[in-house]
Amino acid sequence: MALDEYKPQKGGSELETDHQFKYVGTRPDRPDGFDKVTGRARFGADMYAPGMLHAAILRSPHAHARIVRIDTSKAEAMEGVKAVVTRADFSKNVPFAPGMAGEFWNILENVMAGEKVLYDGHAVAAVAATTPLIARDALKAIEVEYEILPHVTDVDEAMKPDAPVIREGAADKSVPEGMHPNVVRYHESGHGDVEAGFAEADLVIEDHFTTEATHQGYIEPHACLATLGSDGKGELWCCTQGHWYVQKVCAALLDLETANLRVTASEIGGGFGGKTTVFIEPVALALSRKANRPVKLVMSRSEVFRATGPTASASMDIKIGMKKDGTITAAKGEFRLQGGAFPGAPMEFTAMCAFACYNLKNVHQVGYDVMTNRPKQAAYRAPGSPMAAFAVESVIDELCNRLGLDPIEVRLKNAAREGTKASYGPTFPRIGLVETLEAAKAHPHYSAPLKPGQGRGISCGFWFNHGGETSVSLALSEDGSAQVMVGTPDIGGSRASMALMAAEVLGIPFEKIRVTIADTGSLGYNEISHGSRVTYASGLATIKAAQDAVRKLRQRAADKWGIDVEAVDWVDGCAVPSGPNAGDFDPLPLAEITKNMGATGGPISGHYEATPEGAGVSFATHIVDAEVDRETGSTRVVRYTVVQDAGKAIHPTYVEGQFQGGAAQGIGWALNEEYIYGPDGRLQNPGFLDYRIPVASDLPMIDTVIVEVPNPGHPYGVRGVGETSICPPLAAIANAVSNAAGVRLRDLPMRPSRILEELEKQQGDA
Amino acid sequence: MALDEYKPQKGGSELETDHQFKYVGTRPDRPDGFDKVTGRARFGADMYAPGMLHAAILRSPHAHARIVRIDTSKAEAMEGVKAVVTRADFSKNVPFAPGMAGEFWNILENVMAGEKVLYDGHAVAAVAATTPLIARDALKAIEVEYEILPHVTDVDEAMKPDAPVIREGAADKSVPEGMHPNVVRYHESGHGDVEAGFAEADLVIEDHFTTEATHQGYIEPHACLATLGSDGKGELWCCTQGHWYVQKVCAALLDLETANLRVTASEIGGGFGGKTTVFIEPVALALSRKANRPVKLVMSRSEVFRATGPTASASMDIKIGMKKDGTITAAKGEFRLQGGAFPGAPMEFTAMCAFACYNLKNVHQVGYDVMTNRPKQAAYRAPGSPMAAFAVESVIDELCNRLGLDPIEVRLKNAAREGTKASYGPTFPRIGLVETLEAAKAHPHYSAPLKPGQGRGISCGFWFNHGGETSVSLALSEDGSAQVMVGTPDIGGSRASMALMAAEVLGIPFEKIRVTIADTGSLGYNEISHGSRVTYASGLATIKAAQDAVRKLRQRAADKWGIDVEAVDWVDGCAVPSGPNAGDFDPLPLAEITKNMGATGGPISGHYEATPEGAGVSFATHIVDAEVDRETGSTRVVRYTVVQDAGKAIHPTYVEGQFQGGAAQGIGWALNEEYIYGPDGRLQNPGFLDYRIPVASDLPMIDTVIVEVPNPGHPYGVRGVGETSICPPLAAIANAVSNAAGVRLRDLPMRPSRILEELEKQQGDA
Repeated sequence: MALDEYKPQKGGSELETDHQFKYVGTRPDRPDGFDKVTGRARFGADMYAPGMLHAAILRSPHAHARIVRIDTSKAEAMEGVKAVVTRADFSKNVPFAPGMAGEFWNILENVMAGEKVLYDGHAVAAVAATTPLIARDALKAIEVEYEILPHVTDVDEAMKPDAPVIREGAADKSVPEGMHPNVVRYHESGHGDVEAGFAEADLVIEDHFTTEATHQGYIEPHACLATLGSDGKGELWCCTQGHWYVQKVCAALLDLETANLRVTASEIGGGFGGKTTVFIEPVALALSRKANRPVKLVMSRSEVFRATGPTASASMDIKIGMKKDGTITAAKGEFRLQGGAFPGAPMEFTAMCAFACYNLKNVHQVGYDVMTNRPKQAAYRAPGSPMAAFAVESVIDELCNRLGLDPIEVRLKNAAREGTKASYGPTFPRIGLVETLEAAKAHPHYSAPLKPGQGRGISCGFWFNHGGETSVSLALSEDGSAQVMVGTPDIGGSRASMALMAAEVLGIPFEKIRVTIADTGSLGYNEISHGSRVTYASGLATIKAAQDAVRKLRQRAADKWGIDVEAVDWVDGCAVPSGPNAGDFDPLPLAEITKNMGATGGPISGHYEATPEGAGVSFATHIVDAEVDRETGSTRVVRYTVVQDAGKAIHPTYVEGQFQGGAAQGIGWALNEEYIYGPDGRLQNPGFLDYRIPVASDLPMIDTVIVEVPNPGHPYGVRGVGETSICPPLAAIANAVSNAAGVRLRDLPMRPSRILEELEKQQGDA
Repeated sequence: MALDEYKPQKGGSELETDHQFKYVGTRPDRPDGFDKVTGRARFGADMYAPGMLHAAILRSPHAHARIVRIDTSKAEAMEGVKAVVTRADFSKNVPFAPGMAGEFWNILENVMAGEKVLYDGHAVAAVAATTPLIARDALKAIEVEYEILPHVTDVDEAMKPDAPVIREGAADKSVPEGMHPNVVRYHESGHGDVEAGFAEADLVIEDHFTTEATHQGYIEPHACLATLGSDGKGELWCCTQGHWYVQKVCAALLDLETANLRVTASEIGGGFGGKTTVFIEPVALALSRKANRPVKLVMSRSEVFRATGPTASASMDIKIGMKKDGTITAAKGEFRLQGGAFPGAPMEFTAMCAFACYNLKNVHQVGYDVMTNRPKQAAYRAPGSPMAAFAVESVIDELCNRLGLDPIEVRLKNAAREGTKASYGPTFPRIGLVETLEAAKAHPHYSAPLKPGQGRGISCGFWFNHGGETSVSLALSEDGSAQVMVGTPDIGGSRASMALMAAEVLGIPFEKIRVTIADTGSLGYNEISHGSRVTYASGLATIKAAQDAVRKLRQRAADKWGIDVEAVDWVDGCAVPSGPNAGDFDPLPLAEITKNMGATGGPISGHYEATPEGAGVSFATHIVDAEVDRETGSTRVVRYTVVQDAGKAIHPTYVEGQFQGGAAQGIGWALNEEYIYGPDGRLQNPGFLDYRIPVASDLPMIDTVIVEVPNPGHPYGVRGVGETSICPPLAAIANAVSNAAGVRLRDLPMRPSRILEELEKQQGDA
């Protein structure tokens, strides 16, 4: 998901405004429920092949070092070892280029180190052997001589003049002159005159905030099974959010024709953005090609933490001016994000989302993409936006506090609406922020009394949402059941939502529709399941493909009746004669048409391929009550309500699940989760014991309110819902903590030690 | 492939007569060659799933018996046994009906016996256990009490009044009154007045012929891996020629929605018609549903012989009249085929093919479908036709001998050509029999001198070929490579031929195209790979799908250039401005268009679904030299030439392979192969040691001549080639034996004992 993919919505409307829903909006059992509870679902590590080898990866113990020598001969000589690969076994044709222009080179360098290792955990070599144990043993037999270099893991440190340089020449043209070479990309946007705006304000607050890197915390580690022959043809089974992207990247990294690598996405045990790129897949393919055997490669949890992509950590400065009546007069922000040892920290999203909730005359935002000796960041649910919301919404909360204003009223006063020129450029079409604020204000939670020691916070949040390249086909069976082929892995219930939308168009029950996540050899190109795009874009394509099939069904009925296809309607799963022919023939149900489809013209399928550009932005308002234990410094979230605009909730239970999941992950980010690097540059907590994600007992039941302000860019009004829900929690909880304990935390996570520190300062001040 | 699928070709022509081929007709390396020689190809037994069980089937030791009682309790109680199924575990909603109307009931009854076992090897129960050994042991613990009934395994015996009745009520309405209930279907066709024709003849020969049942002899036994949940959703991996048919049948037998069962075809180690139906797949699914675990089921070779479908055995009477100048004045035939304990022996194909090579004024043919206590027959390469050719072409040879006429000249004189009213009804469009006869006549083989003890025989052969329901999609990758998705398992090189046809349309090299056999969840309906339909129908659909993609490519170029799409040609893989815009822009290669396809309108794919009805019939003429050892009675084929009309050979090497394979199988059928049933009704030779298929040392190099008389029903003129090649060998070898040894064998196989018997009779006569 690159910046230039955020196009303003197309003009016009796709919305079928008069649609009366029969299936959409209902809550049938999830189609993959049986698979998941019985173990039938096959995840990344669940595929086997005859003669399969097991692989393991040797990883750097250093944060930054030059590789002087690698000797794999002893490992190669071990019994049971069938192949050892290093960087020499990958393509020499992937060009280095500055910034994101060198996307594939950056991925290759991350997948297998070249001249230098750039972070603790960076892959150096890999082994395929007949058993996992032999493979791991063989790693110890690989000799690597390192020349250790100075390292840096903090974003602000990495920008200082004397910081070690991660890679010369990695900065693209956007970076102003005179910056440290670790600053590789730069973003600036906004409008109006912020200094004039600040001058109009009654109160201006400027503050500094930091957030730590957090991991998506998916349950399933990366896993794959690869086969690749010297004929350049391969198959890859892997756990991914986007197998076409995997296909394209692996083909480039291994000098293959894209079509000759067939990639199948396994069931996925969580992704949240972390499975939108490759880490182990090219390695498994390279090993398979060398060993001429299938190769399975499964990451350990510690490898997941050390060597896959967490989100970026951030250092941010925010300045906002407000009048006494709550009007925001100006806002500016500076966002420095480190995304590890490669370009790509989503600082432009941070900058663009920061003030997107507000209708501002004067706004200015700056972003820096900074390299450090950390693993290459990957997308994490609304990448870049939550940290911005944390900083901005904390400052707005502080302004409200100091000016004695209601935080919802202030947000309503300044809220972006249809026609607002967004802080990041385009003019908003119909959007639903005001509706979420009104619903939050009216919710019993907002006016419920608080117990002593508790505080309430609110925050808004914003995410763009995305369309992207999409191909969907739909095929009918003779018995009138239907199969929908989509190319976006089901990371959030999309098989249910696609089936509901197809049911709606075809007029047949949900249970008669099976949705398949097609492999790359079975469908046209599909962009990754990211950008909250699936229900929107694959949904739109499913509707269009189903409409294509309905057109053919109507044609068959017209042929049978000897009337024009335009005189055939499709009503409740039946062809019905209309217009001059109304009533001439009995309705012809779908299954009656498909029964004879072979003899009446052939199989009936529907297809749609496009890059839909009408993804509707989504806003949320969260309300949270928190309780701070002043003795231990520990914070407990006691009540939580998510109010978010879904456009149209196709399967409301899944939408609620997305709302709850985003809030839960946000709570972890706010309170506990962080990457802890020691002075040696090594990750100190690569496991769920020390990297603490919230468990059920840490969380209250998360209440949800679905607001539906239809997106004009989708026939049923759908907006993506997966990402916006993680944007408000960080700030909402910080605001609640501030309210509960009288201390404002400006650095995440708000772990007990930090709260205690602030409470001690508070007492010192008193 | 049902009788009513043999429609006359549509009017009009699909043929692109001015096409200059660049890729079609070349001989690139086979795309699956690497897979097959390195073991990467995954066949039926090569799939694994976590928690997978192994299954075994208990089979009847009796040819005909009532099942009094089955007690599975001891087996169920065994440690490691997870499920036992009997007929009670299958659908109760599959209706019995006479003849082929009860297709699914017949399959169900064959897959798992109901009240009676009907042949030696008939399935009675099945077990799924943690190991194959436990599963097989558990079979012994199942108690079955049988009441043995009288049986019949010979077709003529089964028609006698006192023959045991296999099943009452199985005969359909076509059967004339007064016939034994074992005669379940009847066919009659022809035209003219045969008796008047015989009266015009100078010589009439009437003779009786028999052929034994033969097996397709595929190397790979049937194998599958099934998962099915109580939610009615399942996945099936199996070795099949037609996974959509498997999907449909299994759904019916297990009360599923068709779309909810996803079937993937494995690589296939031979089929030849024998893998066009199901034997074990519904059993594995039923076991999986009961055990709630994946179940693998692999047949042994003995099970393949005892319980899958060989071809039918036949008893035939032929009468042909000829004038001294070689003109055939009339022909009639009576064909009695047994297809085991169920309706379906392909007697109508036997009857319809019998005289199809000839332009006859008077012709009449009758067929009988007879049930016996043998396994349910399955298709075998041109089902029904080789036995007819054996009988008819033997009589014609005898007529030529007695009238002193050259057998090729006589066939040329009577040959069917464009405009001939075929013996089975339709009028032939352009066909190539005469061209094969002319090529055979001109071939050095036909005039080569014979050594002492050798004889030469020729025979013609005919097969309809078929179109059938077909869906193909084609997707382009950003790098300009292409994936073709077809639904017809590759049983004879179709991945190569599809890639060549797609290359021809797209104008990109063969190596840039990968053909995938899509699973049932990834493409629209596709009929089985049978009827020699794949290169014709999937090929036609591939061409049309590629043309659909080219239209979209031209549109993108038109958009880029700002001109009308009609002013854009597609030449050698490039969009080229034409007409008024010729020369205005540089040619735009496919990869330049696909590189940006996401941003210029979305992914580019092409699609085509239809039931093409222009399959072109195919004729062949074979020449064979045989040598008979008068001491041992053994026959050796010393030279063999196949001349056949391919319409257009897409990949000539594969076409030659089909020609050679058909001839090789025909040689086995003619000389050695037969099902041998003992008086107890049990199969005595269920293995390759006793059922002797030809091995390499039994065969000469088989020479081939590809004749190309384009089929007007296909854009490139393709005719199916897979089946016709097995039609002539039986008669050609019998004619050569007759020529070599002076004895005419009227019963197949012509095993040494039979030849010796005839030689003894000959000496007795002398």
